Amino acid sequence: MKLQVVWYMLGILIAIVGLAEMVPAIVDWRMGHENARDFFLNGILCLFFGGSLVLSHRDGYPQISARQVFLMALSGWALVCIFSAMPLYMSDLGLSYVDALFEAVSGVTTTGATVLSDLENVSHGVLLWRSMMQWAGGLGIVAFAVIMLPYLKVGGMQLFRSESSGYSDKVMARSAEFMDGLLKVYIALTLLCASAYYFLGMSGFDAFNHAMTTVSTGGFSTHDASFGFFESHALQYVAVIFMILGALPFVLYLRLAYQGRFLFFRDEQIRAFVLALCAVVFILTLWLWAQTSYTLEESFRMIVFSASSIMSTTGYTVSDYTVWGGFTTLAFLLMMYVGGCAGSTSGGMKVMRMVISGKVVARQFKTLLYPNGVFVLNYQGRRLDQYTVLTVMGFLSLYVGANVFVTVLLALTGLDFDTAVSAAAAALANVGPGIGKMVGPAGNYDGLPDLAKWILCFAMLAGRLEILTIMVLLSPSYWRA
Amino acid sequence: MKLQVVWYMLGILIAIVGLAEMVPAIVDWRMGHENARDFFLNGILCLFFGGSLVLSHRDGYPQISARQVFLMALSGWALVCIFSAMPLYMSDLGLSYVDALFEAVSGVTTTGATVLSDLENVSHGVLLWRSMMQWAGGLGIVAFAVIMLPYLKVGGMQLFRSESSGYSDKVMARSAEFMDGLLKVYIALTLLCASAYYFLGMSGFDAFNHAMTTVSTGGFSTHDASFGFFESHALQYVAVIFMILGALPFVLYLRLAYQGRFLFFRDEQIRAFVLALCAVVFILTLWLWAQTSYTLEESFRMIVFSASSIMSTTGYTVSDYTVWGGFTTLAFLLMMYVGGCAGSTSGGMKVMRMVISGKVVARQFKTLLYPNGVFVLNYQGRRLDQYTVLTVMGFLSLYVGANVFVTVLLALTGLDFDTAVSAAAAALANVGPGIGKMVGPAGNYDGLPDLAKWILCFAMLAGRLEILTIMVLLSPSYWRA
Repeated sequence: MKLQVVWYMLGILIAIVGLAEMVPAIVDWRMGHENARDFFLNGILCLFFGGSLVLSHRDGYPQISARQVFLMALSGWALVCIFSAMPLYMSDLGLSYVDALFEAVSGVTTTGATVLSDLENVSHGVLLWRSMMQWAGGLGIVAFAVIMLPYLKVGGMQLFRSESSGYSDKVMARSAEFMDGLLKVYIALTLLCASAYYFLGMSGFDAFNHAMTTVSTGGFSTHDASFGFFESHALQYVAVIFMILGALPFVLYLRLAYQGRFLFFRDEQIRAFVLALCAVVFILTLWLWAQTSYTLEESFRMIVFSASSIMSTTGYTVSDYTVWGGFTTLAFLLMMYVGGCAGSTSGGMKVMRMVISGKVVARQFKTLLYPNGVFVLNYQGRRLDQYTVLTVMGFLSLYVGANVFVTVLLALTGLDFDTAVSAAAAALANVGPGIGKMVGPAGNYDGLPDLAKWILCFAMLAGRLEILTIMVLLSPSYWRA
Repeated sequence: MKLQVVWYMLGILIAIVGLAEMVPAIVDWRMGHENARDFFLNGILCLFFGGSLVLSHRDGYPQISARQVFLMALSGWALVCIFSAMPLYMSDLGLSYVDALFEAVSGVTTTGATVLSDLENVSHGVLLWRSMMQWAGGLGIVAFAVIMLPYLKVGGMQLFRSESSGYSDKVMARSAEFMDGLLKVYIALTLLCASAYYFLGMSGFDAFNHAMTTVSTGGFSTHDASFGFFESHALQYVAVIFMILGALPFVLYLRLAYQGRFLFFRDEQIRAFVLALCAVVFILTLWLWAQTSYTLEESFRMIVFSASSIMSTTGYTVSDYTVWGGFTTLAFLLMMYVGGCAGSTSGGMKVMRMVISGKVVARQFKTLLYPNGVFVLNYQGRRLDQYTVLTVMGFLSLYVGANVFVTVLLALTGLDFDTAVSAAAAALANVGPGIGKMVGPAGNYDGLPDLAKWILCFAMLAGRLEILTIMVLLSPSYWRA
């Protein structure tokens, strides 16, 4: 396999990480914090290393095969995590290597699970770096989902492919154009969110950090109490809006910005997502109102925030929803599995696949009753071919299988049933908080055994890359050819 | 819809229940127990009611449509449960109506969850009736799976269809022949099991009862301690063998008995089932041996018994496997979902569907790497068409969805997370024991709220009829035509 292009692209990625590390370096330098040196040194190292790769492989063959894309995807994300973890490891936080890596993987994959506590005493550079990792990770995953996954035909993502197939120069050019538009839209959304936060009372630093981790549905906060630190109700409602916006397919923002077409309400995936969210909020609000002493408004606010946070796979918390009983706990766990829309920054199985799976089951009812009838499956007005449907159903099987596998591994490290199940779900769906004392909304991943942290790092990465992308690299036939 | 045939068949079923109730009536009469009267009266009632239905509808149109079969399946199983529950309700057990119905549904669906305790003081007639319900339920489900499901094309069961399609007279005749053969094989297996139990030290009554609930993978016992009452290791190993035999496709026994062809090792489903069971036993034995003070032999015996019991969905217990930590608990929960082989007396998703789902995922890896390659799926040497594969995948989605739905309903009645999840899984897979203090191996379903018992009755029935069969009847388009 000719790896020229792969090394070239990896070089660019690492150099970008190096450039980005200069930002927290400057912040900590202005604040007079010793971490400035670590960020600066690591940034230089990344720039040097990445630059060398770029310079030594710039004559690569411009075409790229599917097999190279798989390798590039995994090694790209993994290397970005590793290089992003280094300043955390060297900083004054005193983290072990696995803890630093866990925090970085959780950041870059926009999961939001943290091993850090006492965040109020952590240097501004580190806090900013955590938010930046999530912001960039969110941008990266949208690009990955829109440009690469349809081409790789992973889990039905070919539905999002534009007409022409193959990776011709024209598509390359269009990809560059798409990246350019995406970057602008993403920055605009972030600035809008930051301004809203700022005008509603957050400090400039908090507003900027939280905007980055809201739009990316990441969920890192600059406070131990997460979003619960801000008691303003207006802030919480604004966060709900931007978490939901982050969970919608970004292609539609580009359509709105560049073609002036507002297609959100005509998108089957968005309709199902909003409908499901409304149903969950309605039922859980009534349940919470009936079961506790909260007023209807309090119940609604806490539920709408928690549900939007979990279903968009952000992971902010305003209250510990696991103390409200088995029913709410179960509902939140189920929302984790579902996740947001395909083509957004959020994780999980994705609403699009749930919709298609529901249609397959519904068709089966019809066929059972009318054995001779022919029933066509449509998605978004287009007919679904059998192959696409099978890739979607196969993906769902694999997703469940991956959850089972990670849960079993975690249980083997000695975690109890609830912790193992929910940590696996939260990592694979890139949500963050799970269930139980350790990994729940009020807990912290710090207390897990090191082995469990390694497993979760792998799970977060696998979940972010839609599992198949990693599994392919593990299959013997990948390496045989 | 012309319901002549449906009423006719239901009449036959109810009359059979009435005839069967004479057996415990005679037993309790010989023992001088007052329950004899209840069984006798109910038997007469069933015979009268069933006989009237048969006589008044015997001129039915001999052809039968898919829609009628669905209605017949659900109403048949439901009526048998209701009529089987009546003697339990009237007996000296002092059960509420829902408790009596729960016990009967758990019996007829071969689940084995019980609300009774202090079984040593329960009349022999009642104990025998419980075993008889499971034995008949096991026979019924094999007939249902082999004769009806392939014709209804439920969840890929069309794979088990013989060449000619439709319900012609010829197929009817062959079905009668099959039923005849099945009955003989089933009785032979039961007698073999009972003899083995008897010669290894059980009393005649215990041997007979346990043989009936082993071969049917039901799991009702005549003792509170379940199979743990019998301390003989030989008895436990024999039970393992017959539980596994009950979880294999019964068609192969007929092939062996009538055509002299031993096809067990050539069956893909059986190979996968045995392989999975061996792997689980191997890993869990080592785990238990390492974690506890049990010897290797003790660990092996308890694991091989528990694993065979759960995976065959029998539900006997010799020890409370939920006290061995999160890993074993999780492993047993997963085994519940999988279940035994399609075409056997056991429940769950069935190994056949797991195998096909695994092949779909494996094919997807290949297609990702070789986008232009054409990869054919085979099962048992035959090529799988896309439609069959989709019905299997759709079934798996539906099964997971049903589990989620039942779990949510149970959580709404106030059950905690572990209890709700495991009770739903144990009911839908017709296993019996779940996880946690109440529904776990050492617990009893008696303490659940009445509403939860109703939900579980429905779940056991839905699980037994492969969910789709019931869902079809709930779909509006069924009633529209």
